[in-house]
Amino acid sequence: MDATSRIEQALQSAVGRAEVAGCPPRLAAAMRHAVFPRGARVRPRLCLAVATACGDDSPAVTDAAAAAIELLHCASLVHDDLPCFDDAATRRGRPSVHKAFGEALAVLTGDALIVLAFQTLGRAACEPQRLPMLLMTVSRSVGVPSGIVAGQAWECEPHVDLERYHQAKTGALFAAAAMAGAAAAGADAEPWRAVGERLGSAYQAADDIRDAAADEEELGKPVGRDAALGRPSLVAEVGLAGAVHHLEQLVAGAIATIPSCPGAGELRTLILSEAKRLVPRRLAQHVAA
Amino acid sequence: MDATSRIEQALQSAVGRAEVAGCPPRLAAAMRHAVFPRGARVRPRLCLAVATACGDDSPAVTDAAAAAIELLHCASLVHDDLPCFDDAATRRGRPSVHKAFGEALAVLTGDALIVLAFQTLGRAACEPQRLPMLLMTVSRSVGVPSGIVAGQAWECEPHVDLERYHQAKTGALFAAAAMAGAAAAGADAEPWRAVGERLGSAYQAADDIRDAAADEEELGKPVGRDAALGRPSLVAEVGLAGAVHHLEQLVAGAIATIPSCPGAGELRTLILSEAKRLVPRRLAQHVAA
Repeated sequence: MDATSRIEQALQSAVGRAEVAGCPPRLAAAMRHAVFPRGARVRPRLCLAVATACGDDSPAVTDAAAAAIELLHCASLVHDDLPCFDDAATRRGRPSVHKAFGEALAVLTGDALIVLAFQTLGRAACEPQRLPMLLMTVSRSVGVPSGIVAGQAWECEPHVDLERYHQAKTGALFAAAAMAGAAAAGADAEPWRAVGERLGSAYQAADDIRDAAADEEELGKPVGRDAALGRPSLVAEVGLAGAVHHLEQLVAGAIATIPSCPGAGELRTLILSEAKRLVPRRLAQHVAA
Repeated sequence: MDATSRIEQALQSAVGRAEVAGCPPRLAAAMRHAVFPRGARVRPRLCLAVATACGDDSPAVTDAAAAAIELLHCASLVHDDLPCFDDAATRRGRPSVHKAFGEALAVLTGDALIVLAFQTLGRAACEPQRLPMLLMTVSRSVGVPSGIVAGQAWECEPHVDLERYHQAKTGALFAAAAMAGAAAAGADAEPWRAVGERLGSAYQAADDIRDAAADEEELGKPVGRDAALGRPSLVAEVGLAGAVHHLEQLVAGAIATIPSCPGAGELRTLILSEAKRLVPRRLAQHVAA
């Protein structure tokens, strides 16, 4: 089965746990709305790619880890879109969860998706000796002191360290995706942290570039939000050309950091093709490593 | 060390993980505000009491489980108090988190506390073979289809099954507290589900009774909210006297369900004394089993 099918199947199985008698039907519908149809699935693809590069000897654990990572990402989007944060009316070209289901259910949907990530890890305990490392890796990347929730909370502070903000808000979950992929395959997770962190920084740079330079139809969500909300942004700091150059360096750096493993070549190819997909089409030819 | 000290120490250690350089300081302050000073700590006390009754041969795992349960409870209070739910200005006699820190940080504080619960479980992996059961037990009690998040989501549905609503919103975490206490001590968790569920129902009945019959000073939060918001409530259904009678039956039922174990007698005494504490003083003499 290809990576996309594995990820979608693992997510369908996880979200399906809400679609049973006894679960509030609108909560189940809101969870499905938040997770499907699929976005880029960049983080679970990274998780599967690293697991594959490390041998992927326990695919059920890998799939659970990849699904957990994506569920946590989807949860963060639902909460980020809330009126008290970005107040975004659309996401992936459709109404955001709070627009479609109301603010209360949007808060609960994010909560339920966070918990579902850990339920999904717990159910993959067919390799119980891998569970502590997976649980630590994944939970740290979302929580305090430096996971995505902490990253989002930097937006509520009077003084923001831009590098720490990006690292927590985006880099942490990318690092966890790479490390969880290795841990799910029984490999040493730590050497994969730098690969994930650099890809996270590259992804954040690409996100800032898209926000500044893409059109709304291509992006599927409102553009120009960073500037409109006065949020910290790489483009605001170094300009568009500087941001593209920075992205290029980050991707090259991530590739240079890949530990020795059987699937290193395929992983390098995947990373390059993902990087090109993440910037507006008119800038994609500039991204090469 | 007594149960209270163990619980407070485990919670201090968990919340302390946010109070380090690199964590947004206002998020850390909001998390502390949500968890301290202590409330009744009913659920972690139940977790410790059951672990003690089962031998408590791995106290660090027990403490982690108890702290995780309480962190999840505190998270649910922070989100329940938000303007889109109860819009409660006070909690435990102090400003609610969103009143003190704003709505955005209140959403993030709840998220961070949910994740911190799982971080805390992950760090207690000194008994890795007990982790899968603990993770499953705890995560199911908060998530879908029938954990506290699902319970809260019933308030967003046009039709509510009162028993299912109470079971999910309150009973599930009580069941998890009892079961996690057993699992942390290496005992079979399943026989403890009924004890926890009945105590959860009793606690919910006591909560409805307090909301209807306590004064605000004794309760430390606004009273009469169920009636004011038209929420489902046992008192609205069967009256105050009927609710007290129901509570008495539930406590007796919980005690009758305690599995055979060395600490059964002490556990019985603790449950009775907790039950008396949970209703307004003028009604406490009616609660006896």
